Amino acid sequence: MKILIDAMGGDNAPLEIIKGAIEAHEAYDEEIILIGDENAISNVAVKNDLSLAGIKTVNATSVVTMEDDALCVMRNKRDSSMSVGLRMLAKGEVDAFVSAGNTGALITGAALIVKRISGIDRPAIATVLPLESPVLLMDSGANLTVNFDNISQFAFMGAKYMEKIYGIDRPRVGLLNNGTEYNKGNELQVNAYQVLSETGLNFVGNIESKAVPFGVCDVLVCDGFTGNIFLKSVEGMGKYMMGILKDLLTTNIATQLSTLTMKEKLRELKRRFDASEHGGAPILGVSKPVIKAHGSSDANAIKNAIRQAIGFVKTGINQDIANFAVDYAEKKLIAEADKIYETNQ
Amino acid sequence: MKILIDAMGGDNAPLEIIKGAIEAHEAYDEEIILIGDENAISNVAVKNDLSLAGIKTVNATSVVTMEDDALCVMRNKRDSSMSVGLRMLAKGEVDAFVSAGNTGALITGAALIVKRISGIDRPAIATVLPLESPVLLMDSGANLTVNFDNISQFAFMGAKYMEKIYGIDRPRVGLLNNGTEYNKGNELQVNAYQVLSETGLNFVGNIESKAVPFGVCDVLVCDGFTGNIFLKSVEGMGKYMMGILKDLLTTNIATQLSTLTMKEKLRELKRRFDASEHGGAPILGVSKPVIKAHGSSDANAIKNAIRQAIGFVKTGINQDIANFAVDYAEKKLIAEADKIYETNQ
Repeated sequence: MKILIDAMGGDNAPLEIIKGAIEAHEAYDEEIILIGDENAISNVAVKNDLSLAGIKTVNATSVVTMEDDALCVMRNKRDSSMSVGLRMLAKGEVDAFVSAGNTGALITGAALIVKRISGIDRPAIATVLPLESPVLLMDSGANLTVNFDNISQFAFMGAKYMEKIYGIDRPRVGLLNNGTEYNKGNELQVNAYQVLSETGLNFVGNIESKAVPFGVCDVLVCDGFTGNIFLKSVEGMGKYMMGILKDLLTTNIATQLSTLTMKEKLRELKRRFDASEHGGAPILGVSKPVIKAHGSSDANAIKNAIRQAIGFVKTGINQDIANFAVDYAEKKLIAEADKIYETNQ
Repeated sequence: MKILIDAMGGDNAPLEIIKGAIEAHEAYDEEIILIGDENAISNVAVKNDLSLAGIKTVNATSVVTMEDDALCVMRNKRDSSMSVGLRMLAKGEVDAFVSAGNTGALITGAALIVKRISGIDRPAIATVLPLESPVLLMDSGANLTVNFDNISQFAFMGAKYMEKIYGIDRPRVGLLNNGTEYNKGNELQVNAYQVLSETGLNFVGNIESKAVPFGVCDVLVCDGFTGNIFLKSVEGMGKYMMGILKDLLTTNIATQLSTLTMKEKLRELKRRFDASEHGGAPILGVSKPVIKAHGSSDANAIKNAIRQAIGFVKTGINQDIANFAVDYAEKKLIAEADKIYETNQ
């Protein structure tokens, strides 16, 4: 298996990306390839005493920055590490692509260069929230406006992911909404509720954001704008409350001593809220595995995103999504045909 | 000053409402009036050994339930404590109305019976979030869909509130969005950013939800759907993290002993996240003070909501909002006239 890594994407590129690639090369038995400015890569490696032995590099002359617009991978940045990398994936020269770069550009490139899975209208970012039990948030920011059909597709892609990657049997799917009653929300949510009830998925209804931390569903679906607001408030409040905890535990000698006795729990907690432990977020709905690593990824985050890419390829989840999409499209056609038939009776 | 309390609204009505009214009667030097089923009120008072001495009651035969639709106060529940109470407020028989009942019905009734302030298109629920510094969230759920003009009005109403009630000079107004750049979000956010930049308010730009806990703005504006999702995720994550903290502090004898030494800090923290300490949320934009208390309000929450109603009346904030609305409408007219003039040149 060949995993291609965008050496130039993210706040800490290329140093942390290179380090992460080296760590992954040592840890996993798969071929790791770095793409980016080869001069920059080897200079940074030499400067930091890092050996690239066993890691192939592919040259790409330009870099997609955070300021570039989403379509740059198709236009003025066709020679960037991201654009060239996505084309290598599309052609089958590698099996998965990992990037910590510009999210909008990566999603656009994934959809337009690697192509969507047939029957999927909108690929989405699938982020796992580190709560009581893992919750997959779909969409967490790729599509600001969506229709109920998109939400329904997010639901089955997310459910397949939690089933295959987390081993959850019939994952519980919830719709993020401003109340639990079936008629809550805007037109989008009301229609999505109706459609989700008929998908055959284990749909547990509308979920209020305050309930999400307590393990009420495995997959949480919504539009990308709402998902982004929710995702970042979980992140912000987690950080804020950890700060309060730290402040409490350093109140005095007694509390400082007591923290020694809960070291293990604290470490577990820190791990849980450490984004770098969770790897990246796959862009589901694209025909080949594209993993978005967090913009602030360090070496450990990149290593974990690579681990995730390997898992994605191994489970063959895209084939499942493709099959599901075919069934879904067929059911929709039959339902529409039935409606026309009924109208003509 | 006469403060009217809906005795029948909320999960713990009428007992906790009656208790809260009695506590407020003892604590504040204002007239407290209960409205609801007089038989039920006196029965509950007798049964719980509560003295209603000094508290007037007004009879209302029916009750708005959580299942009633928002327009019930205008239709089949015109004889309810909520509807009669709002009409008493509209007629000037009382100075403020407090209810823990059905939010949708209360907002609808406030807008249609008490009437909006001239120039305000959509009243909104103003909720103060208990973070690093208090943040007023507008709208936190009254209006699921809004336009950029509504958001602009939320901004100046919220700013006036924080200025008058919290004594903050030129409150910082932020727009809740999925990124900080000016062109982030949907059409609503892009347009709202533009309009907010021109209001003369202390507009600090787009705010990501992860930044909100750290004191980056005093007023946070958004549509009611997004506001509700955000509000409840702050609530849910706060509760979730407090649970983790509790778990940590009960790890063993050492940690349990150490908690004794941080009692004061823990108490302060508990107070901060205790919704009942914050009273209710005023519905801003209505011509007379209507305070929405939390549905799960206990006596303390009702007492604090009454305190808030008294403060609202005393500061005369509605007059400020009305003046601002007149100026705002005038500026808009001038801008439109200028545009027409320019087009005709």
